[in-house]
Amino acid sequence: MERLALSMDAVWVMLCAVLVISMQAGFALLEAGSTRMKNAGHVAGKQLLSFSMAGLAFWAVGYGLTFGEGNRWIGTTGWFLDLPPEGDSIPLEISFLFQLSFVAVSLAIVWGGFAERAKLGVYVLFGLLYTIVIYPVVGHWIWGGGWLSELGKQDFAGSTVVHLQGGVAALVATWLLGPRIGKYNTNGTPHSLPGHNQVYTVLGVLVIWLGWFGFNPGSTLSVQDGFFGYVALTTNLAAAAGGIGALATARLRLGRADIPMMLNGVLAGLVAVTAACAFVESWAAVVIGGIAGSLTVFTAQYFERKGIDDPIYAFSVHGVAGIWGTLSTGFFASPRLVEITGVGQPGLLYGGGWTQLGVQSLGVLASAIYVAVVSFVILRLLDRWMGLRVSKEEEVMGLDLSEHGAYGYPELNSAEKM
Amino acid sequence: MERLALSMDAVWVMLCAVLVISMQAGFALLEAGSTRMKNAGHVAGKQLLSFSMAGLAFWAVGYGLTFGEGNRWIGTTGWFLDLPPEGDSIPLEISFLFQLSFVAVSLAIVWGGFAERAKLGVYVLFGLLYTIVIYPVVGHWIWGGGWLSELGKQDFAGSTVVHLQGGVAALVATWLLGPRIGKYNTNGTPHSLPGHNQVYTVLGVLVIWLGWFGFNPGSTLSVQDGFFGYVALTTNLAAAAGGIGALATARLRLGRADIPMMLNGVLAGLVAVTAACAFVESWAAVVIGGIAGSLTVFTAQYFERKGIDDPIYAFSVHGVAGIWGTLSTGFFASPRLVEITGVGQPGLLYGGGWTQLGVQSLGVLASAIYVAVVSFVILRLLDRWMGLRVSKEEEVMGLDLSEHGAYGYPELNSAEKM
Amino acid sequence: MERLALSMDAVWVMLCAVLVISMQAGFALLEAGSTRMKNAGHVAGKQLLSFSMAGLAFWAVGYGLTFGEGNRWIGTTGWFLDLPPEGDSIPLEISFLFQLSFVAVSLAIVWGGFAERAKLGVYVLFGLLYTIVIYPVVGHWIWGGGWLSELGKQDFAGSTVVHLQGGVAALVATWLLGPRIGKYNTNGTPHSLPGHNQVYTVLGVLVIWLGWFGFNPGSTLSVQDGFFGYVALTTNLAAAAGGIGALATARLRLGRADIPMMLNGVLAGLVAVTAACAFVESWAAVVIGGIAGSLTVFTAQYFERKGIDDPIYAFSVHGVAGIWGTLSTGFFASPRLVEITGVGQPGLLYGGGWTQLGVQSLGVLASAIYVAVVSFVILRLLDRWMGLRVSKEEEVMGLDLSEHGAYGYPELNSAEKM
Repeated sequence: MERLALSMDAVWVMLCAVLVISMQAGFALLEAGSTRMKNAGHVAGKQLLSFSMAGLAFWAVGYGLTFGEGNRWIGTTGWFLDLPPEGDSIPLEISFLFQLSFVAVSLAIVWGGFAERAKLGVYVLFGLLYTIVIYPVVGHWIWGGGWLSELGKQDFAGSTVVHLQGGVAALVATWLLGPRIGKYNTNGTPHSLPGHNQVYTVLGVLVIWLGWFGFNPGSTLSVQDGFFGYVALTTNLAAAAGGIGALATARLRLGRADIPMMLNGVLAGLVAVTAACAFVESWAAVVIGGIAGSLTVFTAQYFERKGIDDPIYAFSVHGVAGIWGTLSTGFFASPRLVEITGVGQPGLLYGGGWTQLGVQSLGVLASAIYVAVVSFVILRLLDRWMGLRVSKEEEVMGLDLSEHGAYGYPELNSAEKM
Repeated sequence: MERLALSMDAVWVMLCAVLVISMQAGFALLEAGSTRMKNAGHVAGKQLLSFSMAGLAFWAVGYGLTFGEGNRWIGTTGWFLDLPPEGDSIPLEISFLFQLSFVAVSLAIVWGGFAERAKLGVYVLFGLLYTIVIYPVVGHWIWGGGWLSELGKQDFAGSTVVHLQGGVAALVATWLLGPRIGKYNTNGTPHSLPGHNQVYTVLGVLVIWLGWFGFNPGSTLSVQDGFFGYVALTTNLAAAAGGIGALATARLRLGRADIPMMLNGVLAGLVAVTAACAFVESWAAVVIGGIAGSLTVFTAQYFERKGIDDPIYAFSVHGVAGIWGTLSTGFFASPRLVEITGVGQPGLLYGGGWTQLGVQSLGVLASAIYVAVVSFVILRLLDRWMGLRVSKEEEVMGLDLSEHGAYGYPELNSAEKM
Repeated sequence: MERLALSMDAVWVMLCAVLVISMQAGFALLEAGSTRMKNAGHVAGKQLLSFSMAGLAFWAVGYGLTFGEGNRWIGTTGWFLDLPPEGDSIPLEISFLFQLSFVAVSLAIVWGGFAERAKLGVYVLFGLLYTIVIYPVVGHWIWGGGWLSELGKQDFAGSTVVHLQGGVAALVATWLLGPRIGKYNTNGTPHSLPGHNQVYTVLGVLVIWLGWFGFNPGSTLSVQDGFFGYVALTTNLAAAAGGIGALATARLRLGRADIPMMLNGVLAGLVAVTAACAFVESWAAVVIGGIAGSLTVFTAQYFERKGIDDPIYAFSVHGVAGIWGTLSTGFFASPRLVEITGVGQPGLLYGGGWTQLGVQSLGVLASAIYVAVVSFVILRLLDRWMGLRVSKEEEVMGLDLSEHGAYGYPELNSAEKM
């Protein structure tokens, strides 16, 4: 019977891994749709390259660094998944594929900050280093038995580990690369560079939403108590509230029912509830998602005005909502659910005091600083060595031609349209 | 062991819910591809809005109205899923997500009748009211223990509940909104307004077909007897027969192997077998699907000639095939399968007499009348209050600009192409 | 408990069937994206037609020919799935759907060789004959208890059965149809006819990669020992290595980071590991995939130079990598894994001698010859009877108009763009 239960858990986690990996297709659609035609093949294609690199690098070293035996800072065993078998858990290969799907999402978020101007070689090198030097460290701190895990940091499925890390690295890249040509007028006011295909972006967000049914409910790692259903519910409520919160905010503030803002709102709701999905009541999931969605409209505009050209709004969506989601359990974690999950303390609203909010804040700060510093150092070194950004001519021509030698839409992108 | 079996059923229904929710992406592709470029962002984007609204409204009240304790007309408990736990069933949250995926499909069908001319506000308000005033009533009658359920109405996965309801509401909307500008010549003959992207429509139908493996087999709600495999088989056979039936009919009748007609045929086959999949033998599934597919070519043309401009053929595909599918068990329900499912009587062909056909007809009539009347009243009120349709200038300009302030394809839809 | 284990296996195989069927959407995207706009509706639409036909023909006769009782050459029972129930196995309908998903992939590969110039009627007739005359024979030899099965041929999930067969039939079709108009200059040097949408092709390959998590791990047909997780890991490693191998090779050899080549490399890695996934260690999966990906760059160029215009590179990707993958177990099959799977012998590298390599080579040769000869005969007969290829005018105009009477992109493909 124990064996059967384990088989069932293995099937569940395997299928959740497939769902989360499908988010690679979602990000390819979202990013390609949010950028211009001349870069479409490049933007979509680098997603496959990124997933391929992560698939090898996380297998060779990343998984061991994150989940191997080690100390409170880093894992030091498990290269090439060479880890002792654990009798009472699902197969190691399935755990690996599930965790790989997470690092690949984190990496997909990072690329938002590089869009439409970074060299292909930078994707290759930064992607490899992110997979083995950045992600595993914070991953180990929170999920691999490290120091934040010991403090009772609540991050059920990765608002901090996956999303905040990706968002912070994207922000650093955005800042170092500088804005795209044409993004700002000479007086510094931002100019709209709309993405070329909203059908792609809508589909991308739908695929990502679907993938999140693997992301959060799969993070239960077991189906035996049926709790994964509850996690799926809070996830769905926050996504819905995020979309509606953002659309309503955009309608009131920008005067138009802006579709890209609604899409960002759905994603922000999902990102925020990722830490909280197993710790908060369903009404709180609606509140957390709605606030995340609404917030993203303000922050997207704020950063744009401040000269940060973040084409896919990676930091607004994944960074800000990742912070808000991580902090939210400090307010909303309910005693009933903290007992079920067995991690940390109830939040402020339930009389749990400031402890959990403090731990959550510390986790956000430490993770953001680590990622920002290491990303900055790596990117500066790459910049000196090979340059981060394509030339002006290449950027105007588009990365499909400059980095790959062929247009993504050869029948639409002809010379006279450049 | 009972606990393990329940866990397994929970995994199955959860994953089927994900499959059915993926049909939202399918409908976004199908509808966007079947309409014109100037409306593409709007058409795709409103799918996410629709699913978000349904996700909150069906959670707050719709589920309780449909499945809560109550009388034979309506459920009266279960707001915000506040229902007593049932020890021997899958988690309530998973039941909810599965049922939400159905109401979202029904809503997606409704939108076919609104396409390319309705105001965004109408989508919001009609969508909310459909989710809490229309769908739950018929849903309760047939699946929630209501009066049609007591009569032994056979509707395994919703030919009536999901598809006929959606199709009828779409028909009422189509009729009240009137045809799109340019659809009819001054002498009343219809003009083709082809959709802008057949790759999207083909993909949309493929995704919807895949989702149907959750829709019908998932409606077994259990995997213990392996019967879900049989339901998957009849579903697949009817889809295949529907596509081939429609393509052959179009080739003979229109003189061309019309791709949109083949796509409609696949959908019609799926819609028709949705009621019948668990009640009929596999050869009958082929017959039911083939007839549904062939029929849809005739009815699509018929309604078009009669001045009904139904851009996605929502009524032909979901309404007519929904009726045919619901009635089909009155002919084809086999004693062997009626015994397995335990609902209603065998059909005419097996000597079951006219009883079941009568019950099925009554169910179709009562459901269609309820939906038609309530949809009509709601839409007339909305029309008086805010108007259903955008202005002529806005319709010509396209809803991407008029309702959302930005083109879906800004690099293709420039001013000179309008 | 046995009953519960069987239910779990049934759920697993059913969901894997859905994953593999989703590859139909992947192939529709890949093929449509790799061809020109004027053929996009046709190329995508025929995928649905193909899956519909296979769904009926494989149910009526194909499954019985492949898996029915019979002799070592062919099955001779099981028409319309009329087979005696097996008490200790998953439901027959689920086995059927899983196997149908394989024949449909094989058929999708075949169509690569027909792209942009074959008549729709040829798709219909060759598709039907492939499903009932070609595929089931080799399928029976290797998986249905036939003579290659008796020899211990290792082909875990179909490098030979699915991919080599499809690739060889595509090659024969490519050769008989001749190159597309404009593919070769008058001096015989090839000219690039780039596909119209790289976002589609990238997405197509991502969807196919995802589907492969059903293809290979699903071929365990059981989840009880957790071995499916190992198969999923080797599959993913080979895909990643294939993509990187091809991209690196293209960069070195062609001087550009060619995206279509990287995509072919991912597919080649997947094809190659399909035979080997359960027989080889994870490091060997990386080697097998990397070689397959690199190889595909050379063979794609080689065949193109030799006058073989294979628009989707069906033979390079599925044929050559199918051969390499089938042979690879002769080198790399490890004693540990051969014992688990219970098929054949260890490979050369483990001191298993030349036996297994011989059996694998014999299997490749016999299968390739059978498919080539029968495909050739069928296509020659079709050519005499109705002609394989559309007229020059129709080919220039595009198959959307010539075969279906309407453009796939009516707003982009107007008369002046032809």
